[in-house]
Amino acid sequence: MGKNLLIAQSGGPSPVINSSLRGVVEAARAFPEKIGKIYAGYHGIEGVLKEELLDLSCQREEEIALLRNTPAAGAIGTCRYKVKAKQLEDFDRIVEVLRAHDIGYFLYNGGNDSMDTANKVAILARQRGLDVVGVGVPKTIDNDVGDSEFKLIDHTPGYGSVARYWQMIVQNAEEENRGSSPADPVLVLQAMGRKIGYIPAAARLADPKRETPLLIFLAEGKLTLEAMAERVNEEVKSRGRAVVVLSEGCDVGDLGLVKDSFGHASFGASQTTAQQALVNYLNTHGIAAKGAARGQVFGTDQRATAIYASTVDLDEAYRVGQKAVLLAVNGENGFMSTILREPGMIYQVRYDKAPLELVANSERTFPEAWITPDKADVTDAFLDYVRPLVGEDFPNVPVVNGRQRFAKLEPVFAEKKLPAYIPQADRK
Amino acid sequence: MGKNLLIAQSGGPSPVINSSLRGVVEAARAFPEKIGKIYAGYHGIEGVLKEELLDLSCQREEEIALLRNTPAAGAIGTCRYKVKAKQLEDFDRIVEVLRAHDIGYFLYNGGNDSMDTANKVAILARQRGLDVVGVGVPKTIDNDVGDSEFKLIDHTPGYGSVARYWQMIVQNAEEENRGSSPADPVLVLQAMGRKIGYIPAAARLADPKRETPLLIFLAEGKLTLEAMAERVNEEVKSRGRAVVVLSEGCDVGDLGLVKDSFGHASFGASQTTAQQALVNYLNTHGIAAKGAARGQVFGTDQRATAIYASTVDLDEAYRVGQKAVLLAVNGENGFMSTILREPGMIYQVRYDKAPLELVANSERTFPEAWITPDKADVTDAFLDYVRPLVGEDFPNVPVVNGRQRFAKLEPVFAEKKLPAYIPQADRK
Repeated sequence: MGKNLLIAQSGGPSPVINSSLRGVVEAARAFPEKIGKIYAGYHGIEGVLKEELLDLSCQREEEIALLRNTPAAGAIGTCRYKVKAKQLEDFDRIVEVLRAHDIGYFLYNGGNDSMDTANKVAILARQRGLDVVGVGVPKTIDNDVGDSEFKLIDHTPGYGSVARYWQMIVQNAEEENRGSSPADPVLVLQAMGRKIGYIPAAARLADPKRETPLLIFLAEGKLTLEAMAERVNEEVKSRGRAVVVLSEGCDVGDLGLVKDSFGHASFGASQTTAQQALVNYLNTHGIAAKGAARGQVFGTDQRATAIYASTVDLDEAYRVGQKAVLLAVNGENGFMSTILREPGMIYQVRYDKAPLELVANSERTFPEAWITPDKADVTDAFLDYVRPLVGEDFPNVPVVNGRQRFAKLEPVFAEKKLPAYIPQADRK
Repeated sequence: MGKNLLIAQSGGPSPVINSSLRGVVEAARAFPEKIGKIYAGYHGIEGVLKEELLDLSCQREEEIALLRNTPAAGAIGTCRYKVKAKQLEDFDRIVEVLRAHDIGYFLYNGGNDSMDTANKVAILARQRGLDVVGVGVPKTIDNDVGDSEFKLIDHTPGYGSVARYWQMIVQNAEEENRGSSPADPVLVLQAMGRKIGYIPAAARLADPKRETPLLIFLAEGKLTLEAMAERVNEEVKSRGRAVVVLSEGCDVGDLGLVKDSFGHASFGASQTTAQQALVNYLNTHGIAAKGAARGQVFGTDQRATAIYASTVDLDEAYRVGQKAVLLAVNGENGFMSTILREPGMIYQVRYDKAPLELVANSERTFPEAWITPDKADVTDAFLDYVRPLVGEDFPNVPVVNGRQRFAKLEPVFAEKKLPAYIPQADRK
């Protein structure tokens, strides 16, 4: 019987994060001599710190298979807890938990920060004499992991599905806008991705031949509120209407953070949004009538939707999970499993490894050459990049009694062996 | 060769409005001796006033069939133009257009107001000596057409699909919220339906056995902001988290309409929303940490989404369209085609007629008995009513080259025969 495996997730979920989890579990079950129990840190690294380890070994095969079409992180949970470099006590605790539960494989699913944490945990554990292999599993809807030359990773699992979400949403919005014009000629849709524009850029997939009045504003385009409004007004003038997709990170000036009576910002969200600012501006400075612009801020639904998941993304996320286990059982400590695209017309990827340290210290930006000179669209080169990632057909989301049938894991936890612990940042 | 048929749509669209249109076109094509050309008022009654009549007779059979899974009103357009009783010139113009294009059948798809308009047009046309049959086709996502005893209509086409949208969205949101707690324990989702709570009520379909911390606040429940927040805080205290669905019409106090320098309200939408008000309140008065509540306002996507359309709703919308044509060719002037539910366990409907005048003057409210005493949920009796409407499987939305394949109608219009006309309300 081999050592046990522990996987944890970090940060915002994706529609395919559970597909990677399934890949990990099913691959781990294929090595009964090397891998003993399979545990999940319940709600990420916080669950590891609290020694809340969900037992995945005992889960029914069918429920593990159903993880494929189960979106978001409801199965094993995620967290926003960041183990900071200075929180040595937290790192010590993680190593204690690894030791107490005979963990030989530590897998961490997340973005750049998580790759850094996975790396540090593995280094520390080995310094303390534990034989632990630390491996990263990439995930983020923003596609901001890795470098801009795509050498470390071509694209992150999760991105293809959110790209498909925007493709579909904008196709629907075009029907809505065309039908409801001229009464409601402008529809402004705000997409996630504060720092990087891959998500709003994917809206172009809805209309790759540019047959509809679709405008796409990335934060990287750096248009002012006035310039964006002018462009929308031009579109309304020439084509009668416009569907606008803009990044939540577009700089539209003060978003009006409100402070409460204690002087603290009174809510996590800003009082207004880039979408609202643009809609308001259009309704006061637009060529169309007042109230002619309306908008919507898309929220967590874009990272939690089962039916818009890309089948390509679902498959790749699964294989990236499998690959992480292969790296682990081969003792490849300090690597992230990765997706690299083969050159040429035929879309083909291979699953490889990238050093965690390089990934942790890398930064991806949206290539400037993929933004059109007028900053209101993305180029065909971007379409060539993104098109294969969204796949062809809708996934087969199982439906039982009219409802989506998502995986249900049994709440079976490893027996606690250590004293209780409050994660450092949670102490008051 | 019979007289021509004219159909127009009014108000906000639905995911199945085109399914009714398909029913109308295909049924009309079955009576070549009674019905000549089939025209659509392009963008509703405004298109009729402007004599912009889209020719549906010449459209390819396949494109008409594709209307089934094409959401919203992009095919023939809708409008918000209301022909007011006093705008006699508009009514005169409509009759002129009907006469000029030899219209014998006038079909109007919409809600209560549209049924009133259809009735008035038919009465006036006959007074002027035209042999026109006026028939209504019911549509609204709000399910607010007809009376509360369901004698005129059991439910409106469009509602079942939006109900399914909320069923699916809330299932996804549950995965998101469960996975992202305790970091983000409260997720507030705002649904459409300002005056009537059928849409938010449908969220209960996501969890009919009440296994998850789902709270539903209808405007009809009349809870104050404080009372809603208290209920959410209780849920967070007892179950650690909450998914909250609330109606856009919930009374949360001043929504902060901003006025511009001219003293006019500067945008159609209010500055804030019921969702934002509740989220802000929770983040300042909640038991969870600041920023622990987040929310999203769902917009036009709920009435423009192809993949969440209910197959039952799609079928019924089609048949209601067919029925309207049958009423028309039988000379049943002044009726709306309607859906009535047979009593008993087995869900079964029959397609019948309801007098336009009764429908126009009726008002539906959400039955008080379907709201639970604590005003934070709906009852099983409501679930019994709504469950059959959302159907079982996902519809088969055709996908071509990765994109949803929606109907594309050729822009072929009837030759204009009258002088140009500016609709009365559009004059300056």
